[in-house]
Amino acid sequence: MSGQKRIRDYGVKIGKLETGNYNSITDVEGVTVGHVTLSDHDAQTGVTAILPHKGNVFKEKLIASSHVINGFGKTMGTIQINELGTLESPIILTNTLSIGTAADALIGYMLEHNPEIGRTTGTINPVVCECNDMLLNDIRSRFITKKHVNQALKNTSKEVEEGTVGAGTGMLCYSLKGGIGTSSRLMEMEHGTYTMGVLVLSNFGILSDLKVNGKAVGEELRDLILQSREEEKDKGSIIIIVGTDLPVSERQLNRIIKRTVTGLSRTGSIITNGSGEVVIGFSTAKKINHDRTLDCMSVPVIHEEDIDIAFRAIGEATEEAVLNSLVTATHVIGRDGNERPAFQDLLKKYDIYITK
Amino acid sequence: MSGQKRIRDYGVKIGKLETGNYNSITDVEGVTVGHVTLSDHDAQTGVTAILPHKGNVFKEKLIASSHVINGFGKTMGTIQINELGTLESPIILTNTLSIGTAADALIGYMLEHNPEIGRTTGTINPVVCECNDMLLNDIRSRFITKKHVNQALKNTSKEVEEGTVGAGTGMLCYSLKGGIGTSSRLMEMEHGTYTMGVLVLSNFGILSDLKVNGKAVGEELRDLILQSREEEKDKGSIIIIVGTDLPVSERQLNRIIKRTVTGLSRTGSIITNGSGEVVIGFSTAKKINHDRTLDCMSVPVIHEEDIDIAFRAIGEATEEAVLNSLVTATHVIGRDGNERPAFQDLLKKYDIYITK
Amino acid sequence: MSGQKRIRDYGVKIGKLETGNYNSITDVEGVTVGHVTLSDHDAQTGVTAILPHKGNVFKEKLIASSHVINGFGKTMGTIQINELGTLESPIILTNTLSIGTAADALIGYMLEHNPEIGRTTGTINPVVCECNDMLLNDIRSRFITKKHVNQALKNTSKEVEEGTVGAGTGMLCYSLKGGIGTSSRLMEMEHGTYTMGVLVLSNFGILSDLKVNGKAVGEELRDLILQSREEEKDKGSIIIIVGTDLPVSERQLNRIIKRTVTGLSRTGSIITNGSGEVVIGFSTAKKINHDRTLDCMSVPVIHEEDIDIAFRAIGEATEEAVLNSLVTATHVIGRDGNERPAFQDLLKKYDIYITK
Amino acid sequence: MSGQKRIRDYGVKIGKLETGNYNSITDVEGVTVGHVTLSDHDAQTGVTAILPHKGNVFKEKLIASSHVINGFGKTMGTIQINELGTLESPIILTNTLSIGTAADALIGYMLEHNPEIGRTTGTINPVVCECNDMLLNDIRSRFITKKHVNQALKNTSKEVEEGTVGAGTGMLCYSLKGGIGTSSRLMEMEHGTYTMGVLVLSNFGILSDLKVNGKAVGEELRDLILQSREEEKDKGSIIIIVGTDLPVSERQLNRIIKRTVTGLSRTGSIITNGSGEVVIGFSTAKKINHDRTLDCMSVPVIHEEDIDIAFRAIGEATEEAVLNSLVTATHVIGRDGNERPAFQDLLKKYDIYITK
Repeated sequence: MSGQKRIRDYGVKIGKLETGNYNSITDVEGVTVGHVTLSDHDAQTGVTAILPHKGNVFKEKLIASSHVINGFGKTMGTIQINELGTLESPIILTNTLSIGTAADALIGYMLEHNPEIGRTTGTINPVVCECNDMLLNDIRSRFITKKHVNQALKNTSKEVEEGTVGAGTGMLCYSLKGGIGTSSRLMEMEHGTYTMGVLVLSNFGILSDLKVNGKAVGEELRDLILQSREEEKDKGSIIIIVGTDLPVSERQLNRIIKRTVTGLSRTGSIITNGSGEVVIGFSTAKKINHDRTLDCMSVPVIHEEDIDIAFRAIGEATEEAVLNSLVTATHVIGRDGNERPAFQDLLKKYDIYITK
Repeated sequence: MSGQKRIRDYGVKIGKLETGNYNSITDVEGVTVGHVTLSDHDAQTGVTAILPHKGNVFKEKLIASSHVINGFGKTMGTIQINELGTLESPIILTNTLSIGTAADALIGYMLEHNPEIGRTTGTINPVVCECNDMLLNDIRSRFITKKHVNQALKNTSKEVEEGTVGAGTGMLCYSLKGGIGTSSRLMEMEHGTYTMGVLVLSNFGILSDLKVNGKAVGEELRDLILQSREEEKDKGSIIIIVGTDLPVSERQLNRIIKRTVTGLSRTGSIITNGSGEVVIGFSTAKKINHDRTLDCMSVPVIHEEDIDIAFRAIGEATEEAVLNSLVTATHVIGRDGNERPAFQDLLKKYDIYITK
Repeated sequence: MSGQKRIRDYGVKIGKLETGNYNSITDVEGVTVGHVTLSDHDAQTGVTAILPHKGNVFKEKLIASSHVINGFGKTMGTIQINELGTLESPIILTNTLSIGTAADALIGYMLEHNPEIGRTTGTINPVVCECNDMLLNDIRSRFITKKHVNQALKNTSKEVEEGTVGAGTGMLCYSLKGGIGTSSRLMEMEHGTYTMGVLVLSNFGILSDLKVNGKAVGEELRDLILQSREEEKDKGSIIIIVGTDLPVSERQLNRIIKRTVTGLSRTGSIITNGSGEVVIGFSTAKKINHDRTLDCMSVPVIHEEDIDIAFRAIGEATEEAVLNSLVTATHVIGRDGNERPAFQDLLKKYDIYITK
Repeated sequence: MSGQKRIRDYGVKIGKLETGNYNSITDVEGVTVGHVTLSDHDAQTGVTAILPHKGNVFKEKLIASSHVINGFGKTMGTIQINELGTLESPIILTNTLSIGTAADALIGYMLEHNPEIGRTTGTINPVVCECNDMLLNDIRSRFITKKHVNQALKNTSKEVEEGTVGAGTGMLCYSLKGGIGTSSRLMEMEHGTYTMGVLVLSNFGILSDLKVNGKAVGEELRDLILQSREEEKDKGSIIIIVGTDLPVSERQLNRIIKRTVTGLSRTGSIITNGSGEVVIGFSTAKKINHDRTLDCMSVPVIHEEDIDIAFRAIGEATEEAVLNSLVTATHVIGRDGNERPAFQDLLKKYDIYITK
């Protein structure tokens, strides 16, 4: 992906399952991702858009579910996702104080593509997620405009840039620079091979908690960098977007996305009080017509005994996506000269091996 | 049903939809109900068993959901129902302090019918619900034995006796004698006609709150009966079992069973603190094999736009089932001479019309 | 309130408890409400703001809880309310497609009053609720601007206008004109007299379901008005804001606000699929400092055995608030000449008595 | 504790916080634990009882909360814990098919100690948790009797035996012998030093997933033991009991106990489909009178900004309790000659170092 050096390129292999072709959420057929990045002195922020399929998501909804790991967050759209079990819009990620603008832009985008909304059919449920990038970004200035959101929606592709990009531009991870990361896993079943894709917006953790595939790299770095200085307080936020082509009911999908926490925990997170950790998942296996059908629908779902491989896949992909967000991020100097080092730079500087 | 005079026989017609043939949960194909009644001085209690279909429920599970209206209760089995979305055993209703015995008996029944449990497959999730009949029944004596539970499971039929019977023997409703009640509604859709059935174990409410189809019959009765005496405290408990042949996902079924509260509220309930109000619902439309299938399953579900008639049906059937439990119950003198009048007797005695 | 003729002025008395002075959510000390109304041809919409206390809500948060009756809605802010158990902003009500603008305006308002947000402390959780007014209002035009939201926030007072006003301008209720309604109840306990206040934005129901204190007024009206024409499909939306000065934990508050559904059901609602029914509640009894305290906090809460009167109060106040919204609303001709009659006009025209 | 060699005795130190004196749930003042062990050929099972304080738990309830990590389980009592936020009985752990007997015994125990139950006050909510020990134990025979439960309740002490004991007698962990484990952490705050205690009944995981403080010990063992044989399917069950003297609301306690999953994940769990993973937590900081008080209660709770250390403590204590259950367990040959090796024996046999 985009020529960036990812965690596998350091020799770190997470888990037991194979990755998809891109090792990205875009390995799921139809899923694309777009970024808009603002990086100029006090403005270190952006927008990331995820399109769940290539068609009209309002007219052809996807089975979806959300899960709150820690609810100190402002994600919009989960009430309806959970009631109706469907996603009917792209997903927008941005900074916390720009959710109003992002929602308004996404509503506008949906109105434009669906002239019947508000006329012959009801309204639209915009899904907007956020993390707080106030250390590096002057978040009070609300730099994000509707144009940025529209641009991110237009920019999407299969190639996903990671790290200091899009909504991840000003985010932190384990006290280092964080941001966007992605990964995927293949799931072999008797009835087919399916893909589990994860994209994260990472913005959590304190340095000394960081584990890379079980290795306590964070402690090592803390001793080198912080020495006697006290560690900062964790603000603990992460958004996790899950896409899959596995045929699942919304209940099954909810069970699966709850397991993201296993991968998150293995990178060292204790899930602090500070901010929102929210997961949104969707399956592309079945499209649900917006308009009522005269017949019953038939929904393909796996037998529950098949689900363990999906639990394994999502844990592994989440762990790897977080590490990818960390290792691809680049050094940023932002608001008031606040800065965060890049993990990749520290690895070089201190000659640290992250494989055991 | 059983020649008892039900609320419709008094000229009270609840709602807009037609009832099934029996106006009972047993109008749902395959559902049967059995009672064992203990009524002897201080022993005023019993067991009611609901069989969700005629086959082996463990091997052919049904899509199911549970909902807690008020959780001051001890119902067992809901954790697994909600996680897996399936029911794999009959449902047992009894008094609060007999749930251990009932669970043990139900486990034994399941082991007997399924020799592979605990050997080549896992365990079984027994579903046991309860209300507290301590006023009329010496509940501390725990009169219920495993034999009673087995007998109720063996006794089931399409004909459901109501009122002072089975688990309802010692229960109260709106300060009068309550117990078992049932009702059903037909749902016409383009793709078929379906049945929504409800069975309640009623044990809640204070007299002055009782409404019959909107008429404040309870206030009238309170003035006649209690005069200046203070009303007793409500203990607020009801178990609501919902069966349907509507093809629904567990999410849709959950949405439907949540609407039982509309019917409950229209009989006058304010849902007091005192005890458990729990709903268990199942759909017979699709049988889920216990054993893993090699292919994906295909689950028939209605389009969400079809669901309103199910919301209407369940509210109406719940309201009518509560009124049936009340109007069919007979006068009981129980523990320490405690007694509760029968609504039907009061209507005669005071010459009250419950139609407007 | 404002000289409008309310449901009690028609001789309809809901329930057993006394009302507060205003019979309004503003009977709760410190609570004020403000409206901005847009009513001009195709623009029939507005904003309603609820201020939970007179101080800085961000610095002195209130114990709060939310509850979803039906999640076909876009309400923002509930994830954090439920995780942290606190409300830290005013509450804004508006139309569905204006939630982005409303959120952005509310964020701006909070930033203005709290310069430390995004600098020395974290972010802010804006609470925005909505109903869909597309029949009478050209909702696609998104007429609401940030100025309107700020104006509503500035306009608040103890006197609450009801009906066709603020966010209620374009809303429907039981196929008639609906909108804003409010009511309150007093709760006498040994340790004090407390107030339960409810404000609704009503936008649900079909005519034939309407019950006024148990009387089937809706059926009567349908026969008069619709005659052989088919009833329209219900879109089923209501926002319920609950304020109280009762000392409660967030768990207790959640139990209380769940009981709004009893009042809602008694007006005839079957809680249809169509739109969001969301409750947000707060208690003014204890202010929670935004800044960490060195000592443990001490939170006053009622004993659980005291809670039944709160359950009764909220059911009654909700039922009455809905009826107030209906009976105070005035006839509106809006988008494309669509119109909705006022209940009050029909009562006069057809000479209908709503008391029994 | 009992002279058993625990994970710290192998040089493995989990996390950053200090342990309590016993490094056990019994470090929380008032908490005691009792076991009854059945170990004889096909009978490899037992009962473990946790007493949350030394007084009458029914009359002096504790603030409590439950959390379901994976609901493929039969734990009883959580509906009421979550509704009322209190624990009013000891907690019993046993095998899955003995929950009925255990509930019945616990009800009997509560009746004996509280003659007013079922007479002048309501009923009792028994809390019974379970895992499935069918591989080593002939679970169908239901060896547990009421006497065993009463004995466990009588046997409790501060010294907690771990491993193959009590309810843990027949349990597995990471394909090895598992069972009972416990650990604790101290939490220093400005207003005091508090203890977080965890006790687990471990019965989950496949060998190759096992991590000891980040080290992939399971993979190493699998290669040594299984060689080319296929790994067995995980049944994934664990019961986690959390006791603390931290002053918390039930909401805060729920946030805390949800974080057990971080420790669980770090031992390697992917939380498989197979069985129930349930957490029950209680705080001894405030006793809630069963009988109504005339005044409001005052509940001491920490400020939310103080909670991170509790999140850290519970993750660490859970991780260590699981490892303690594993490393103290002894080799068992049970039903039909089925057996499971002890981790401690394998470490010796293959000379494996579990510190890095």
